[in-house]
Amino acid sequence: MGVARETSEVGRGLPVAVDAMGGDKAPGQIVEGACQAARELGIPVLLVGDGDYLARYAAEPGVAVQAASEVVGMDEDPGRAVRVKRDSSLARCAEAVRDGHACAMVSAGNTGAAMASALLRMGRLSGVARPAIATVIPVPGSTPTVLLDSGANVDCTPQMLVQFAQMGQVLATERFGIVEPRVGLLSIGEEPTKGNALVKEVHALLAGGAAGPQVRFIGNVEGRDVMTDHVDVVVTDGFTGNVVLKTLEGGVKAVVGGVLAALTADEAVKEAARSVLPALSPLADELDPDSYGGAVLLGVNGVCVISHGSSGARAVVNAIRVAHHASEEHLVRRLESVIASTQVAAARG
Amino acid sequence: MGVARETSEVGRGLPVAVDAMGGDKAPGQIVEGACQAARELGIPVLLVGDGDYLARYAAEPGVAVQAASEVVGMDEDPGRAVRVKRDSSLARCAEAVRDGHACAMVSAGNTGAAMASALLRMGRLSGVARPAIATVIPVPGSTPTVLLDSGANVDCTPQMLVQFAQMGQVLATERFGIVEPRVGLLSIGEEPTKGNALVKEVHALLAGGAAGPQVRFIGNVEGRDVMTDHVDVVVTDGFTGNVVLKTLEGGVKAVVGGVLAALTADEAVKEAARSVLPALSPLADELDPDSYGGAVLLGVNGVCVISHGSSGARAVVNAIRVAHHASEEHLVRRLESVIASTQVAAARG
Repeated sequence: MGVARETSEVGRGLPVAVDAMGGDKAPGQIVEGACQAARELGIPVLLVGDGDYLARYAAEPGVAVQAASEVVGMDEDPGRAVRVKRDSSLARCAEAVRDGHACAMVSAGNTGAAMASALLRMGRLSGVARPAIATVIPVPGSTPTVLLDSGANVDCTPQMLVQFAQMGQVLATERFGIVEPRVGLLSIGEEPTKGNALVKEVHALLAGGAAGPQVRFIGNVEGRDVMTDHVDVVVTDGFTGNVVLKTLEGGVKAVVGGVLAALTADEAVKEAARSVLPALSPLADELDPDSYGGAVLLGVNGVCVISHGSSGARAVVNAIRVAHHASEEHLVRRLESVIASTQVAAARG
Repeated sequence: MGVARETSEVGRGLPVAVDAMGGDKAPGQIVEGACQAARELGIPVLLVGDGDYLARYAAEPGVAVQAASEVVGMDEDPGRAVRVKRDSSLARCAEAVRDGHACAMVSAGNTGAAMASALLRMGRLSGVARPAIATVIPVPGSTPTVLLDSGANVDCTPQMLVQFAQMGQVLATERFGIVEPRVGLLSIGEEPTKGNALVKEVHALLAGGAAGPQVRFIGNVEGRDVMTDHVDVVVTDGFTGNVVLKTLEGGVKAVVGGVLAALTADEAVKEAARSVLPALSPLADELDPDSYGGAVLLGVNGVCVISHGSSGARAVVNAIRVAHHASEEHLVRRLESVIASTQVAAARG
């Protein structure tokens, strides 16, 4: 707990630790994005990774370098990687946050290993049963939807989902400035009686106020609501959340691919399409996961942003911006406070 | 069991029973679709519903009418509706199949009540633990993907999912002529160790051949594979399946809506878009759920097609076509045989 307090309070001058070796396009695109964030956003960065490779960037303005001799592979077993590779760039990033040398960490590497590193090195926030991954889903023409858990915990208890509701509400407020975010429980019908055994129990808890007065629970929502303006935070278990996330990814890709295929089918259409494609580019930008700066691991004692494995420089810039903002806005302290408030209430009640 | 045999064998001349009162656009669009199917596809139909309303259609070629005095509302409790409304159009459709007066039934009404009516009136196929709803997901430029269970059973045992794999394989073969459909288990990673407790158990069973030699199990698939050509049948529990289905619906709608909004944003774009929109219409058609004729309830002793609540005439025509094809191709008998084969093996083994 102490570390997070310190981190937040002295955070303004601290760099964002960036795992230079994590991601399909590491280190090239990752380093490029980090240098760009330092240069263009004025956010100091600490590049962590291969010392020889990174040495040449140490002179860049706002960029510091820390050598780490090991790399966690994208498909490596997370538990083993964290146990064995003690000098990995990922572990060193998490330690930089823990030790107050960085205000936040960003990695586009192995998601499971990033989670495990953050959890083991930074520790869990007091009162949190299990950290969750919160992902941001674009909603064309509106504020995005926060979806959690999107993959950290495949089998969940009802109490875990109640905390996800609390943590998701805090993130929606911090990241998008939504004052009273509408929190919905993902189910297969709006009625409280709809859903599997887990969802029915969680519905009863949330409807009964178990998440505290800060959480504005609007009841069950359905898959079709995720990409709409009907809800700001969608709460679900990590299995369903991950399936939703990837289903949307695949669905959006299939439709966008279909549109592009249709518009390039023959020369006449191609010619006509040339003048409409620019009109579609803001939408393409809005739907691009790179615009959203990655997922956030909520419930650990520090800011940890996990970017898509395919992140390029632009995604890294956005992830660093998001991580820095979360630190500036005291995300961790806010999470701690909302979790503590209901624990006090539960102890009294 | 006897009923299904009879139904299939004498099915060629039998009509498809159509619930004229079920659906948001009932009876108008439903009846219109049914008459169109009779006229244009030469499939005889039995319209079941309000006798006064339907009387005028009795003279149409290929159309017969059966009066039913009650209607199950779209939001009515399915259990209660089936218990209390014994003369509902839905119940009478299911009875027509059971009694050998129709080769199949089609309803765009209350999904839960349609399921319950079919199950109670037609009975369950011998050896089937629980019937499942199989939905067809469009894949631009390829054969659709069969997704099951998409909502019949929210809490599932591993054995139920093994049967879903068997039944889905039969449907993909019957409906799309796929010789050895690739059957995937929906999870959150390709490795057998990925997934929740249920998925891990099912993976072990399917990999061990529990679904029999007919089922070509390709391992875990992810949400992003559903709308691709990587898999033909996606097996999951009814909660996750329903979430996937509605998530895709919402995602496709959001993207298509975004494209249309962008292409009509101002006069200049609108003018240019006029010449590309026709190129997009085959894609729009491909993505339209009305093209696919609805979901099929697998595991009951008769053919039951459940169409989207918002079905218009075109969706009804397609649902009738699908129902008739399933009857002609002996879908029920094929299901019975694949289920029986592994039961015999299990008894022997």
